[in-house]
Parts: sequence; structure tokens; C-alpha cells
Amino acid sequence: MAVLQSFVSVHPDSHFPIQNLPYGVFKPQSASPPRPGVAIGDFVLDLSEISSAGLFDGPLLKNSDAFLQPNLNKFVSLGRPAWKEARATLQKLLSATEPTLRDNAVLRQKALVPMSSVELLLPVAVGDYTDFFTSLHHTKNCGIIFRGPQTPVLDNWYRLPVAYHGRASSVVISGTDIVRPRGQAHPVGSSTPYFGPSLKLDFELEMATIVGPGNELGKPVDINNAKDHIFGLVLMNDWSARDIQAWEYIPLGPFLGKSFGTTISPWIVTLEALEPFASEAPKQDPSPLPYLTEKEPKIYDISLEAHIKPAGHEDSGVVSRTNLKHLYWTLTQQLAHHTINGCNLRPGDLLGTGTVSGPVRFHILRSLTF
Amino acid sequence: MAVLQSFVSVHPDSHFPIQNLPYGVFKPQSASPPRPGVAIGDFVLDLSEISSAGLFDGPLLKNSDAFLQPNLNKFVSLGRPAWKEARATLQKLLSATEPTLRDNAVLRQKALVPMSSVELLLPVAVGDYTDFFTSLHHTKNCGIIFRGPQTPVLDNWYRLPVAYHGRASSVVISGTDIVRPRGQAHPVGSSTPYFGPSLKLDFELEMATIVGPGNELGKPVDINNAKDHIFGLVLMNDWSARDIQAWEYIPLGPFLGKSFGTTISPWIVTLEALEPFASEAPKQDPSPLPYLTEKEPKIYDISLEAHIKPAGHEDSGVVSRTNLKHLYWTLTQQLAHHTINGCNLRPGDLLGTGTVSGPVRFHILRSLTF
Repeated sequence: MAVLQSFVSVHPDSHFPIQNLPYGVFKPQSASPPRPGVAIGDFVLDLSEISSAGLFDGPLLKNSDAFLQPNLNKFVSLGRPAWKEARATLQKLLSATEPTLRDNAVLRQKALVPMSSVELLLPVAVGDYTDFFTSLHHTKNCGIIFRGPQTPVLDNWYRLPVAYHGRASSVVISGTDIVRPRGQAHPVGSSTPYFGPSLKLDFELEMATIVGPGNELGKPVDINNAKDHIFGLVLMNDWSARDIQAWEYIPLGPFLGKSFGTTISPWIVTLEALEPFASEAPKQDPSPLPYLTEKEPKIYDISLEAHIKPAGHEDSGVVSRTNLKHLYWTLTQQLAHHTINGCNLRPGDLLGTGTVSGPVRFHILRSLTF
Repeated sequence: MAVLQSFVSVHPDSHFPIQNLPYGVFKPQSASPPRPGVAIGDFVLDLSEISSAGLFDGPLLKNSDAFLQPNLNKFVSLGRPAWKEARATLQKLLSATEPTLRDNAVLRQKALVPMSSVELLLPVAVGDYTDFFTSLHHTKNCGIIFRGPQTPVLDNWYRLPVAYHGRASSVVISGTDIVRPRGQAHPVGSSTPYFGPSLKLDFELEMATIVGPGNELGKPVDINNAKDHIFGLVLMNDWSARDIQAWEYIPLGPFLGKSFGTTISPWIVTLEALEPFASEAPKQDPSPLPYLTEKEPKIYDISLEAHIKPAGHEDSGVVSRTNLKHLYWTLTQQLAHHTINGCNLRPGDLLGTGTVSGPVRFHILRSLTF
């Protein structure tokens, strides 16, 4: 089968071929109202224009105002059949062989906006943000740092996907300046706490689930239906002030050490687009309890890198290189566990994976930041 | 000075005299759109009707649509001058000596709705919910329960108001059924975790701040301005599954043990109404850091009781009797601390005090629930 191609020219190194089509929210000009879009090559396709032109003509979306909203919450609430319909419509419209958009200069002019000229916004209004702790290597590293080498991984970690509630208000879009937090810390050897700017600002390279329809309070999501509640994934940087965190976190967990900013990517890559990268999840030992046991445990093979470019430097250095497949608990296990007590997830909720660490340790710059 | 009285008859035992006037949101009939109201005696005054009748005639509210909203978020965002103006307008309109509403039968019929006939809703859309841990007696009790008698109160507790991010989606209005959560626990002596309905369902009697204007990300609220960001207080029950919590909470804090339901009262009592109950806060030792040092530390003298009525019983039993004045950290210290790292608070955010425990231990029923 020939590879699907778009009439929009896409550089071979682009992250945005027609096979991807991630969703975001943007303003074409600074005074325009926000509207949903998908990325294609160096352009953003304005979904409000496509919708207003009547081109979402499938049964689920033809009378919907889901793309006439200032965020994607309504669209993600519609569920997988509507997501598949939208993807099929957009792949057809953008394909090299389809004349509807390709040969309509007026519509093309309105609907295909150069990405370099738009302002990207948070793709969803995040009702609640949860951060998991599901990479074994990261858990070991943190355990040694916070508690010493005796018990780096606690007993509960192998039994359930450990997580904490994060702060939704300080979730920001990639590119937003993060103000260095001030706070209390208690350096080793000091009799009184220190107060001032954090001296141990750190990053955490994560991915995060954007929740789809979600569930009612009191009605857990079955593990084998959990995938239907995952719209897609974003990149996430869970900025962390380790000195503030270390002093405040016992016994109720991270608070101000984490709530001064959490950065997510502007683009949500859908599970449909990630399907070619699905691979079998690693075997879990001990076996998970039945409510966490999946018929087909899957994880995604996604290479991840973090670079740091210090102020005044021309070049950035790689400080982390890993892969999402190193997660111990799958995305669906995270989601099902989150609801097993009856907790309700809402469309647009954000579920971070926790730092994705691999088996190899990086030393470049890392030793400076921690 | 004569005590202010309303033309609406108010029973001497009512919680809702003209001196209180707490804010809520209600539907007069099940098909009506939600609108703000204040409680007066056995009635709710419909603020959308008062607003539509042009009776909010002060400079800040006369052209405002703050009372034509489905929740109080817009009104609480306006800040103390608007809150004072609204209170003055409403106390005047409801007073025994003012004819405007008293003598207008048509408006009275529309605007004064019997409380027994309305449906009360969540008064605000809660963007983020935070729970503090600021009662010394509660902290000691929890420390003994979770860690044993050696170090019931940790060093950081006397230095900062310890808190965790809670779950906003499961905040519900008083009267909403709470489904008993299922989850994992690890009973003492068991080699594998238990899964099933929680065997240690508990309540926590708290009050909670409803945040007013809030602050921008990166710009902390000064401790001496913190009061201007507190619109008022609600009662709160932080339902807790102690067995789930004890197994999951190390190292990232409470998660599913708390996120199956958090009940708040429908009425927000304003700080203006609470002013007569303000008293000097207890002296703190060690002295707090400068960012937590207030010119006039205040706490409120509010008696609190929790009653339990088991299914099938006619009568309820008191299981907790305490007072808000037992808090170690003041409400303003909690709020200022929350923002010191730059974390942004938004209008309608909910900040629980943590269980307010007093020095006296209650044994009735308590031994059954924990």
C-alpha cells in the first residue's frame, strides 16, 4: 500500500506528517478568539473554518459545535467513535488526491495558517491534574535521593500505580516563562529552615494522558475499557524544586515544590496516531490485582529527550534520553486505578506518567541541577 | 444601637439572621437555571431577581452581571469592596425599616423563595482544592495512628502550614450520597494487599476558605494582603478511607484514600459576617518566618460539631465537638504560604483547614469508624 501523503508539503523530518495530525488550540492573530486546529507540516489547519464550511460531514460531527469552542474539552468528551470520524475526515481532506480543500484557494487561504504566525494556547481547560510515579528507574533514583539506599522502592509501588494530585492552575503551555520559586528548605546541618529562591530547581521529563469522556463519581472505569477514556498524549515537564519538596513532603506529599509551573506541549498526539508504536508491555511481577489486569497490556515506543540551553549559550545539551516504554504501569492501568475508588475523571483532565527514566544514567549538567 | 432586624421573620435559633447573609447557588424549580442567592431565615433571596430589578445600585455592582451567573465565581473575583457593597445593599433591602422590597408584593413573591422548596447546588466551580493540616491536636492524633507514638509531629509542621493538593472533581454539595470506595489496603500481618470495599471509612470535620480574586502565576500574595483574597468559609467533610490511605500514601501523600468525595456546605459565610467572631490567634513558637508573620494574626471562634445518624436510627450522636480557634496556622498564613512559590490561586478555589481537633478526645462511635 502506498504511504498516505498530503497536498501540504511536509519535510521528511517534520513531526507533523498526515499520519500524526495532533490537536491543539491557537489564535491566528493576537486579537482572534481561540479555536481548535491540527498540525500539518509547517501549518495549522483551522478546524473552526473546516467545521463552518460543513466539511465535517460524518454522522457524529456534522451537526456538532465541538470545533467552534475555545478549547478541545467538548471534542475530547465525545469519545473514540467521534475521534475516529474526525481523523478520517481530516486525513481525507488533507490527502494529495482529494480536491475539496486542495483546489479551493479561498478556503485554503482561510483554513491553513502558517504555524510560525499563530499563538498556541493550552489545548484543554485542565479540571484536575494528577501525576503518577510509574517508572521503576525514576522511583529507584528518587528513593535513594530522598530516603537513602536502604529501601529505594517501597512495597506498595509494585502493587499499585502510586500518584498524587497536582495543581491544575499552574499548568502552562510550552514556552511560558517559569518564575524561579521561593520557599522554605532545610539544608543538612542547618538548625533552622532556609527561606529564599530554590537552590535545587529540577525538571522531570514526562508524558501525560489527556482524558476523554471520563466517568461519573462513584462509577469506576473497567481496566479493559480504560483505553476509550484516553484521547491522546502530551509532553510534560513537571518542574520541581527539590529543596522545597524535600522539606515539605512528609507526610502529605509534594506541594509547593511542584505547583509553581507544569509545562505541557501545545499538541495532543492521539492514540490513533500512536497505534503503530504500540508494543507489548513488560511482564509485571508480582501479578497485578484483577482490577489492574488487562487482556492486552500495551505500552508505546516513544523516544524522549530533554535538552537544556543555558542563558547566553548558542547550543543546547542533552540531559536526558529515554523512552516511554520504560514505564512499569501502563497508561490504562493508571487510569483504571485512578477511578477504582469512584473518583470521577472529567474531559481534559491531565494524568502525568511521572518522570520516564531509562536504565542509563546521564551525568551531563544533571549534576548541576540536582 | 438597636440590633438590625429583617422584615423577613427569622426564628431566634436560625443560622440565617440578617447579620449572616451567606451566599449560595440554587434552582427555584428543578428546570430553572442555577442562580446566586443569600439565605435569610427560612428563605433564599434570589440575587438574579434583585439584580434584574436594578436594586444593586452601588457604584461597583450597578452594571455588573455577577449575579446573573450559574455560580459565584465572578462575584468572588470582584474583591472586598464589591463584597462590602453587596452586603450593605442586601442588609438595607432586607431590613425591617426599608420599604423597597418589604412593600413590593410582586418582587417579594419572585425574589424570596422558601428554602424548603429549592435545590441547592455547589456555590462555586472549584478550580483547585487544597487541604491543609493545621490543627496541632489532629496532627498529633494522625502521627500516632500512621507512624506510632515516637514522633507524632514532624519538624516541618511547626515551620510551615503543611498541605496537599486534593481532587476538585469529587467536591460535592452537602446531602450528595457518597459511594463507599473500593481499593487496596495492606492489613497488618497480611502478606498480600487486600482489595475490596474500604473497612476504615472516616470523616474529617473541617472548614474551608473560598478564595476571592487570587493571584497571577509567579506573583505571591503578601501575608498582610492575604485576607483580601478570602471571600468566606464553608463547612467541609473530607471523607477519608484510612486503610486505602495508609497503604498508598508513602511517599507522595493521600490520593484515592481522599478522592471519592469531599462534601462542602451549600452556604458560604463571608468574612464580614464572621468579623464579630474574630479573636487573637494563639502565639506561635518558634516564630514564623517573615513571609508568614502577620501584623494582626486573627482566628475565628466558631463552634463545630459532627453528628452521625446510623441507618435505621432515629437519633444522631455527636462524634466530634471542637472550635475553629484551635487551628495553629491562621487562614491568612495558609493562603500566603500557598502562593509563596508563585502558585496561582483562582476565584472559587477551596482551601480546607484540615480536621479541626480540640484538646478533648471523643470516644462515642469514633472507635467504630477508625
